[in-house]
Amino acid sequence: MAGFHSKFDTLRWCDGRLEMIDQRLLPAEVAYISYESAASVADGIRDMVVRGAPAIGCAAAYGVALEALRMQRRSAEEFKTGLDSAFEVLAASRPTAVNLFWALARMREIWQSCVPGDVKASAACLLDAAHQIFHADIAANRRMGEFGAELIADGASILTHCNAGALATAGHGTALGVIRSAVEAGKKISVFADETRPFLQGARLTAWELMQDGIPVTLIADNAAGHLMSRGEIDVIIVGADRIAANGDVANKVGTYQVAVLAQRHRIPFYVAAPLSTIDAQIADGSEIPIEERAASEVRGYRDLQWAPKLVNVRNPVFDVTPAELVTGLITELGVVLAPNTEKIAQLLRSAER
Amino acid sequence: MAGFHSKFDTLRWCDGRLEMIDQRLLPAEVAYISYESAASVADGIRDMVVRGAPAIGCAAAYGVALEALRMQRRSAEEFKTGLDSAFEVLAASRPTAVNLFWALARMREIWQSCVPGDVKASAACLLDAAHQIFHADIAANRRMGEFGAELIADGASILTHCNAGALATAGHGTALGVIRSAVEAGKKISVFADETRPFLQGARLTAWELMQDGIPVTLIADNAAGHLMSRGEIDVIIVGADRIAANGDVANKVGTYQVAVLAQRHRIPFYVAAPLSTIDAQIADGSEIPIEERAASEVRGYRDLQWAPKLVNVRNPVFDVTPAELVTGLITELGVVLAPNTEKIAQLLRSAER
Repeated sequence: MAGFHSKFDTLRWCDGRLEMIDQRLLPAEVAYISYESAASVADGIRDMVVRGAPAIGCAAAYGVALEALRMQRRSAEEFKTGLDSAFEVLAASRPTAVNLFWALARMREIWQSCVPGDVKASAACLLDAAHQIFHADIAANRRMGEFGAELIADGASILTHCNAGALATAGHGTALGVIRSAVEAGKKISVFADETRPFLQGARLTAWELMQDGIPVTLIADNAAGHLMSRGEIDVIIVGADRIAANGDVANKVGTYQVAVLAQRHRIPFYVAAPLSTIDAQIADGSEIPIEERAASEVRGYRDLQWAPKLVNVRNPVFDVTPAELVTGLITELGVVLAPNTEKIAQLLRSAER
Repeated sequence: MAGFHSKFDTLRWCDGRLEMIDQRLLPAEVAYISYESAASVADGIRDMVVRGAPAIGCAAAYGVALEALRMQRRSAEEFKTGLDSAFEVLAASRPTAVNLFWALARMREIWQSCVPGDVKASAACLLDAAHQIFHADIAANRRMGEFGAELIADGASILTHCNAGALATAGHGTALGVIRSAVEAGKKISVFADETRPFLQGARLTAWELMQDGIPVTLIADNAAGHLMSRGEIDVIIVGADRIAANGDVANKVGTYQVAVLAQRHRIPFYVAAPLSTIDAQIADGSEIPIEERAASEVRGYRDLQWAPKLVNVRNPVFDVTPAELVTGLITELGVVLAPNTEKIAQLLRSAER
């Protein structure tokens, strides 16, 4: 079977601008928003025009490049001030996904390696670096897909949570990339998609993405996952990640932890597909990962339809931490790490440096 | 502290008719619908004007009484035909909650004990029986509340799923009845309410009900319950039940099983509050409980707002089964059964017959 070629772009460089598909409107409307500055890209990340850890990383890299291009006729000093503030505003956009900080750190490294004082050359060099991050992400997803597909039996029924698809990355996807690669390898696969309250990435994005590719998908309420597991209807679980600690603890969309606990009870393999840029070697375990809390209105309803009492108190943590002990394997672009722990992850990161 | 007196009625007998608060419109609108026949009550149950196992039982009893009143000027034969068909249409309204079948069985017993051939006396007798079922439910909830309140520590943070409140019963509530009684006993209690997709009984009904009584409530996405447990923010869990098997397996709103599995992992007590009418001694364990599946539109969106792709395949089981091993205690009107099993439940039912 030929590879899947997306009928949409999560983000794309077009005419000197960054365009991002507005994921808040999907699937009802396919519309792109155009960005020309770091501040506007930061708004796009915060407001969830773009979401998904790897896609946020790519968007942030382009945000820096856009700012560099915007400042390329200014003095070296103004360029530096502008870029420093671009890094700052982008870093403040969302707290949990580490790919954002990874991409910004990469861009800063590139900038520091540019010819000092040559503003125009620096801008060109930063745009080139953003393109590289973008294309490296697609390549990493393809490799994860190949490694991950080997873990999936023909005929498998796979549960996924949130959207770890092409829409969460530069393309192909992490968890959905594994599913796509398994289908490309000729396996018959069906997918259960958790709707993923409160932002409904599963209902709106995963369902839409898989239907675009003709991969059988069944939407369920998050509450139904345990019931289906108890009835033997789920063979394997694959999710993405927003940040992975040095010991293998995984921060991902809220609800992931519950799925992992249920998987353990039912002896269902629970895989996390994520590029190395999602691993944060600076933190020992998941307890140090900041968990973003978002607006109460997300839980009181959906968009303009607010069904809960107007003034009801709300807690809206949008990520949770799945301890490494619940992770059957970590699928990366360098291979699969079974039963991840500090030692195995350190070894993986060393092999990447070679 | 004085007892809570509801500012609303879940169902009430008024001017020879049954009135039920339309729970589909809450909390935006407080409106009552009036019923004069068994068939219309069956529609009200099926369409979820009324929901909650004990409330459904009461509604069905009044449904039989309404039909008897409607037929009280007919011949004994016509009366019998009409009532038989009333029992049939009500029994077919929803499959999982056993209180429906329990209430219908009680009404049939009463009918069979009526003077044969005296249609008018039978009708009066059946209405009286419906009133008795209604008032016995409130009394049972009050007793459950007293027993259950003793299990709740002052200052406890309680998680509940779905709505097992006054709105799910004739009044006071099962799980929320325990909470109300604990508050009445002077305990400081705060409640986390799972929003309970897809029908959002937690967001719309539990949040509203508790706010009416000034009991502190915080609404969360179902996905956030595990995260809060992992952070030590939940002290105890109380839910209701739709059917309890002879061995103590509990069918309740979908998602309950997931909460129970997480409670076990975090060593959080998990209580089920339900009247004896919820126990189905005829079935050995939860595997025999029929699990209702409802419309795909409930998962594709909420009411008119459909956010998922129009044609996406959906599975919508609306109940699940929590095995007895996960239940810390069953709170009934005759007392608390810790670590319920077949023997203890049989003993409980025997004590009720004395």
